[in-house]
Order: sequence, then structure tokens, then C-alpha cells
Amino acid sequence: MAKVRVASFGVSLDGFGAGPDQSLQDPLGVRGFDIMEWFLATRVWRSMHGQEGGETGVDNRMAEQSFANVGAWILGRNMFGPVRGPWPDDQWKGWWGDEPPYHCDVFVLTHHPRASITMKGGTVFHFVTDGIEAALQKAREAAGGKDVRVGGGVATIQQYLRARLIDEMHVAIAPTLLGSGESLFAGLDLPSLGYKLTDHVATANATHLVFGTA
Amino acid sequence: MAKVRVASFGVSLDGFGAGPDQSLQDPLGVRGFDIMEWFLATRVWRSMHGQEGGETGVDNRMAEQSFANVGAWILGRNMFGPVRGPWPDDQWKGWWGDEPPYHCDVFVLTHHPRASITMKGGTVFHFVTDGIEAALQKAREAAGGKDVRVGGGVATIQQYLRARLIDEMHVAIAPTLLGSGESLFAGLDLPSLGYKLTDHVATANATHLVFGTA
Repeated sequence: MAKVRVASFGVSLDGFGAGPDQSLQDPLGVRGFDIMEWFLATRVWRSMHGQEGGETGVDNRMAEQSFANVGAWILGRNMFGPVRGPWPDDQWKGWWGDEPPYHCDVFVLTHHPRASITMKGGTVFHFVTDGIEAALQKAREAAGGKDVRVGGGVATIQQYLRARLIDEMHVAIAPTLLGSGESLFAGLDLPSLGYKLTDHVATANATHLVFGTA
Repeated sequence: MAKVRVASFGVSLDGFGAGPDQSLQDPLGVRGFDIMEWFLATRVWRSMHGQEGGETGVDNRMAEQSFANVGAWILGRNMFGPVRGPWPDDQWKGWWGDEPPYHCDVFVLTHHPRASITMKGGTVFHFVTDGIEAALQKAREAAGGKDVRVGGGVATIQQYLRARLIDEMHVAIAPTLLGSGESLFAGLDLPSLGYKLTDHVATANATHLVFGTA
């Protein structure tokens, strides 16, 4: 059965899924890319970007699974870009250049309506203003029986977890401290929401945790 | 050189060093012992309690190191017991029975004075009412050149970290969720305080993290 899932979501040892002060220079906040080092080192990621080599063990397998059978994505607005408030114009089209790595419909949660944007490679950004459940319904339809991946950031994932709409969440704890930023677990009582740890495996670069419904 | 250190301090995946609602029945809060399972399974711990067998790998080595060269301990009051406010009498002598596993001087932070208690096996509980720095000075003198171990709980460790008085902190992340309780990392900016990860190793039962001064 199709799942709603979070995958390959990087978190620091002190629990932050992004550093502070997101900006054009720091899409994941200051030093936020430190938590994705394990991912950027995998063969999957490198080959997606035309690079040779890369890690081919557990980290790569987890990265691979994160992309497998995904039919649609949901992103919080901050994961789509640094622009806040009403869209000033149609210039901002995500962090990822002309050909984003989604290759399917991507639903962006926002309070401010905007027309869909068709990118190269099959990615279409849609802007959803009527909430997380509406976005999920649209994503499910677009996914055509495949999984819906909730990309992040932290606030978006927390909203879906609180609504008990996530079936599976793979978090990768990176061996680094951020000190401040967006805390994934803060104020979130996962056991009370019905989640438990279902799998875990550690590598030199990350500790992979998989949470599922109990 | 003698160190001030935290060692074998268990934390859940969601960052809690103790569960909620500490009581006589739940010294580490509800389900708090789940985060110490790795430790209770080690040969070191079992042999301290007259039991055979136990884990003899990395977990055991970390448990062993946590006790090695310790000349004095510092405990927060809640780690000493569930009694709050002024001591009603001298009945409460810690969670550990007649012969506590310290075998040296133990300094308990409290706002309420009380006479020292000499236990079997060399443990003497002292009650310090003039703050964490005074407690550390007394512990250093008592340790006679050995390390001072700050046992916990979370509030005590956070105070010593904020004062930059901890030289080394070994935290063991257990593969379990607590959902709520005492959060070790909440509001604590370790990099800004001058700490960084200096070592990490994962086993099936725990991910061992060692933090040191940068």
C-alpha cells in the first residue's frame, strides 16, 4: 500500500533538522549542510548530479530507498525558498535550478496563492493554500498509487506527525552539533502520537532511525 | 590531568535524559530505565551487583571507563532522591540501599542543608548548599587528583556545561523514544559553549557520543 513518508531527513546530534538563519546562501540554515554530508557522499546523490563514485553501503541504500516509489512530494514553504510573505513575483522557482531532483508533482504549503510552475525533467510545483490535509489529498491523487514523500522542513514534518498522517519516517542523525536551529523532536511526543522506532542502523557518517506507527 | 566529566549518561532518541514524573517507583521517570538498558546489560554493571555474564564489547568498555579513575561524584538533588523542599527527616539516603555504587565522596546539590551521611562501602553523601562551583571545588579536593564525575540529572549537567566546567561528556543514545521528560540538549548551544563531538561509536544497544572542549 502506498505510504506517506519522510525519508533521508538529516538531524544533528542535538536534534536540529536545520541550522538557524536560513538564507539564499544557507538554504538549510547556517552549517545546516553538515547534517546532510552522509547523503551528499552517496553514489545515488553523486550520480544524480553527474558525478562518479560515492559511498555504496548502508548510507547509499538508505538514500536509494528515500527516492524509490515516490509519486509526489510535499514541501513546506521554507524548504521551497527563502521568500516570506506574499510572493513578490514569479521569479523564485526553488533552490534547485531549472531541473529539480523531484521529477514529479511537488506540493508546496503556503498561505499565499501562486500559479503552478512546470520545470524541466517532470517536476511541477503546485502551491497549496488550504492546509496540510488538502495538500496530502492532492499529492495522493498525483502520486497515482505510489508513495507521497514529505520532504520537510521541521515545521511541516511536525504538523503531519501531529495529525498522525505520516506512516514512516527515516531520520539520519549526523555526527555533528548545530547548537541552535529547527528542533525536530522539541515538543513532539512521538510515543503518544502512536509512533515507535522500527529499525536502526549506524554507519560512520550517520545513524539511521526508522519510525513507524506502533 | 584530572577531568570533570559526565559518563555513561543515557539519553533517548528524542533527547530525554529522564522520563516524566520521577517517583519512588520511577527514579528515572516513567520508562526512564529504557535509556539505561545498554548499561544494565554490561558485564561491569552485572558484576557490581553479583550477577554473572553480561555484554563484554563496546558497551562494557564504555561502562568500565565511566567508573575508572573517579575520585568523587556530584549529583543533583533529584538524582539523589524524590524528596523535594526541606528534608523532612534523615530517612532518605538515596536510591541505592545501604551500599551505594559510588565508594567515595558524593556531593549532592541542594538548597536545604543536611548533615553528611556515611554509607557502607566508602560512600559518603555530602550536601552542598552554596552552588555548583563550591560543590566542584569540594569534589576536586575530595577526589585527590582523580576525576570528578558529574552524575546528573539533566538540570545539573546543563548547569555545569553552561559554566563550561565539564571537560568531557559521554552520552549514550538508546534506541528508544520517551516522548517527554528532561531534555538534555534543549536550550543548550554546545558549539557556542566551546564543545564538539570528539568520538562516536554505535552498537546494537546504544550510540556512544563523546563531547570535549573544542
